[in-house]
Amino acid sequence: MRNILVIGSGKSTSYLFQYLVDKSKAEHLKITVADIQLDLAKKLLQNHPEVNLITLDIFDQSHRRRLIQASDIVISMLPARFHIEIAKDCILLNKHLVTASYVSPEMEALQQDVKQKGLIFMNEIGVDPGIDHMSAMQVINRIRDKGGKMILFESFTGGLVAPESDTNLWNYKFTWNPRNVVVAGQGGAAKFIQENTFKYIPYHRLFRRTEFLEVEGYGRFEVYANRDSLKYQSAYGLDNISTLYRGTMRRVGFSRAWNMFVQLGMTDDSYTIEDSEQMSYRDFVNAFLPYSPSDSVELKFRHQLKIDQDDIVWDKLLELDLFNADKKIPLKQATPAEILQYILSKSWTLKPEDKDMIVMYHKFGYELEGKKHQIDATMVTLGNDQTYTAMAKTVGLPVAMATLAILNKSITTPGVQIPITKEVYTPILKELEQYNIRFQEKEVPYLGYNPLNI
Amino acid sequence: MRNILVIGSGKSTSYLFQYLVDKSKAEHLKITVADIQLDLAKKLLQNHPEVNLITLDIFDQSHRRRLIQASDIVISMLPARFHIEIAKDCILLNKHLVTASYVSPEMEALQQDVKQKGLIFMNEIGVDPGIDHMSAMQVINRIRDKGGKMILFESFTGGLVAPESDTNLWNYKFTWNPRNVVVAGQGGAAKFIQENTFKYIPYHRLFRRTEFLEVEGYGRFEVYANRDSLKYQSAYGLDNISTLYRGTMRRVGFSRAWNMFVQLGMTDDSYTIEDSEQMSYRDFVNAFLPYSPSDSVELKFRHQLKIDQDDIVWDKLLELDLFNADKKIPLKQATPAEILQYILSKSWTLKPEDKDMIVMYHKFGYELEGKKHQIDATMVTLGNDQTYTAMAKTVGLPVAMATLAILNKSITTPGVQIPITKEVYTPILKELEQYNIRFQEKEVPYLGYNPLNI
Repeated sequence: MRNILVIGSGKSTSYLFQYLVDKSKAEHLKITVADIQLDLAKKLLQNHPEVNLITLDIFDQSHRRRLIQASDIVISMLPARFHIEIAKDCILLNKHLVTASYVSPEMEALQQDVKQKGLIFMNEIGVDPGIDHMSAMQVINRIRDKGGKMILFESFTGGLVAPESDTNLWNYKFTWNPRNVVVAGQGGAAKFIQENTFKYIPYHRLFRRTEFLEVEGYGRFEVYANRDSLKYQSAYGLDNISTLYRGTMRRVGFSRAWNMFVQLGMTDDSYTIEDSEQMSYRDFVNAFLPYSPSDSVELKFRHQLKIDQDDIVWDKLLELDLFNADKKIPLKQATPAEILQYILSKSWTLKPEDKDMIVMYHKFGYELEGKKHQIDATMVTLGNDQTYTAMAKTVGLPVAMATLAILNKSITTPGVQIPITKEVYTPILKELEQYNIRFQEKEVPYLGYNPLNI
Repeated sequence: MRNILVIGSGKSTSYLFQYLVDKSKAEHLKITVADIQLDLAKKLLQNHPEVNLITLDIFDQSHRRRLIQASDIVISMLPARFHIEIAKDCILLNKHLVTASYVSPEMEALQQDVKQKGLIFMNEIGVDPGIDHMSAMQVINRIRDKGGKMILFESFTGGLVAPESDTNLWNYKFTWNPRNVVVAGQGGAAKFIQENTFKYIPYHRLFRRTEFLEVEGYGRFEVYANRDSLKYQSAYGLDNISTLYRGTMRRVGFSRAWNMFVQLGMTDDSYTIEDSEQMSYRDFVNAFLPYSPSDSVELKFRHQLKIDQDDIVWDKLLELDLFNADKKIPLKQATPAEILQYILSKSWTLKPEDKDMIVMYHKFGYELEGKKHQIDATMVTLGNDQTYTAMAKTVGLPVAMATLAILNKSITTPGVQIPITKEVYTPILKELEQYNIRFQEKEVPYLGYNPLNI
C-alpha cells in the first residue's frame, strides 16, 4: 500500500478525491485527508474504507509532521500561503509534494535542498497555472521538434459560468475567489510584447484595451491583459519571441461595464471608507461622485463616465441594484473593493443548479521553412454541479494524476518545478482526455499583429 | 552676539540669508552657513563679515555637532529626510530648531524629549506648508473669537510662473522640484469632505475633477484635490466642519492636458521601461499604445484618448515635441515618470529672465447669529529673478522671522510644532506684509456647495 496525504479539503478537492478513490484498489492507495474542517470530505468520502479523515490544525507542527512522516507523498490543497511550512516538513522527512499553486519565492528558495534529497516538489499543476503550462508546452515543443521557430504565443484562460447558467447581463458569476476578481489587474501596469515592442497598460486602462476571441460552439469572448505576460518567457524558452501576451477571458461586454467601477475608484483595496457600515449602496456610489444638492446620483454617474441614455451598460448597473438607497452595507471599515464585492456577491453568486465553465485559448505563431503558420488551440470544460465543478475538475485531476505518476516513478526528475517537461505533460494531458479535458487544435493563417508584414 | 547656524544653502535660501544679514547689526547676529556645496552662499554672502561659510559633510557627526554646539539656534534647509539627525543633535545639545518641512513621524516622535528640555522645534514654516497654516488660522481664530462657527474651509496653493514669463501653452514651468510635479496626486485616492459627505477621487480621475477660482488681477485658475484634505482637520480645530477641501492651483486647462499623461500611464513611477536608453520620445509614447503595423502613433494617441482633431490639448503635446522620432531619451532603466520629467524639462525649465509666482486662495465659510457668511482670502507673490524667487521669498522669510522670534523670546511655547498659534502667526504675518506678502480679504455671499440650501 502507498499512503497519500492530502492536506486541505476545500471546494476544489471533489474530483481529486474521486480520482484517488477510484484508483485506490488498482493502485494500492491509502488516502489520508487532513484539515481543520472536514465537512466536504465527510460528505464525499465517508463510506470509503481506504480513506482516513483526520482533523488537523496545520499550525500543530508535531501532529502535522507525524501525518507527513506516515505518508509516501503529500498533496497540499491549502491556500498558497500555507504551503511553505509543509514543504519544509517534506524536506525534513524526505517526502514528495504536489500543489496547484504558484511557486512562491520561499518555495523557489528550497530548490537546492529538494534536488539534493532527490525529491519532487510539483507546483502549478492545476488550472491557470497548470493545464495552460502543459498544453502550451506540448504544442511549443512539437513545433520546435519539427524545426519551427516560435514567433508568437498568446494564452488566455477564463473561469466563467456554463452557457445554460449564464443568466445575468454581465454574463458572469463568481465561480472562484470573488476577491481576486474584484482586485484583478491591480498592483502595477500590465506588460507584454507585441511585434518586438514592449507595451504597458496602466490598471485604469486595462479594461479598455481588450481583444476578441471566438471559441467554436461557445461564441465570442474578450480578453484583458494579465499583469505580467512575460513571467514564463524564459521557462517556456521564448526569450526571442516577437509577441508574448497572456490574458483573462470574459464574455464580450464585461470589461466595458467593469471599467465603470475601475474609473470611479470602486475597486480600490488600499484604504477604508469612512462609516462604511451605515452606508446604503447609493451612498457608496455617491462617495465617488461630486457633491450636488440637487442632481441625482444617477445623473452624476452618467455625466462623470459619459454614459449615453441608451447605453446597455446602464442596465448592468441596475441589475446590481447599485443605486438602491435602502439596501445597507453590513461591513465595518471596509475598503471600496470589499464593499463592491459584497454588492456583486448578491447578484453573482452561483445558484444551487448553476454550472461553471473553464475556457482556455492558446495561439501559437511560428516560422517553418520561411513560411509563417499559426495553430489555435481551445479547451472548454463544463461543471456537473456545484460540487463537481469545472474548476475542481481542472484543478484536481492534474494534481491527482501527477501524484500517482510520481508514486509510480513515471515522473522522476527531482526539484521544485512546474509541469513544462515532456515527462510530466505527455502522460497527464493524455489521461485528461479520458475525462473530456481536451484541446481542439486548428491550423489558421498566421495573423499576428502585422498580417501584411508592413 | 547670537549665533544662528543655517545647515543647507540650496536655492530656497536667498531671502533667508538676505533677511538675516540685514538684521545682523541691529539684532547682533552671527550667521554660520554650513553645507557640502557653498556656491550660492558664496555668491550671496561672501562680503559679509558677520557670515561664516563652512564646508560640512552632514554625515560627519562630530563636525556637525561641533557646529550645532557653537550655535544658539539651528535652521535646517536640507532636504526633509536629513532633518531627523540634526533634530536629535539639537535635543542632545539643547538647541532650538527651525525647518520648512512637513513634520515626519520621526520628528513627531521627539515631541516628549523636546518639551521636556523646553526646546522649540518649529516646522512647516515656509510655504505650503507654512504661510497657508498661518494665514488660515488667523482668519479661523478671528471668526471663532467673534462667536462664528466654521462650516467650510478650502485652501489652495500653486507654484507657477509669473504672468510676464507665462509663455508656453501649458501656462506652466518647473519652479520647484519637477519630480514632485510629475508624481503629484499618486499613492492613493484623494479624500475630502463636501457638505458632510466624504468624497474619494482615484488618481486617474483627479485631473478631471477640477474646480475654478478667480484671483483679482491675475485671472482664472483651476484646482485639483490634494491627497489628504483632512490632514490638519484636528490641528485647525475643524473636526465638525461640513466642507474641508485642499488643493493645488494651476492655470485653467493644465489639468485636462496633464490628464492625457495620467491616462496613458506615463506618470507611473513604480516600474522601469525596458531599454529606455535606446528610445526616442516617439517610442516612449508608443509603449503605451496598442501595436499597429500601419497606424501612426499620433492617430493611436488621438483614438485612445478620444481627442478631436481641433482640440487644443493636441498643440500642447506638439509643443513638447512628444512625437519626435529623433530625440532620444538618455536615461537608463528609467520609470515612465522619469522619462516624462526629462521630456517636460526640455520645455518647462525657467529661462534666466523668467520669474515665478506663488498664489494662495482660502475660502472660509461660517455661521454667525443664524446667518451664513464667507470670506475669501488671496495672496500672490512674484519672484524678482531666478535667485530671488517667489518660492525662496515665501519659504525663507517666515523661517528667518520665526528664528529671530525664538531668539528674542517672542515665541516661547516649547515642543515640536507647526505655526498655527497666535503667538507664532500674528507677528510673522504682520512682518511679512512689510515684504509685500499679504492677503487680500473679501466678504462674499456664502456659496458652499449648496447655496440654495436644498
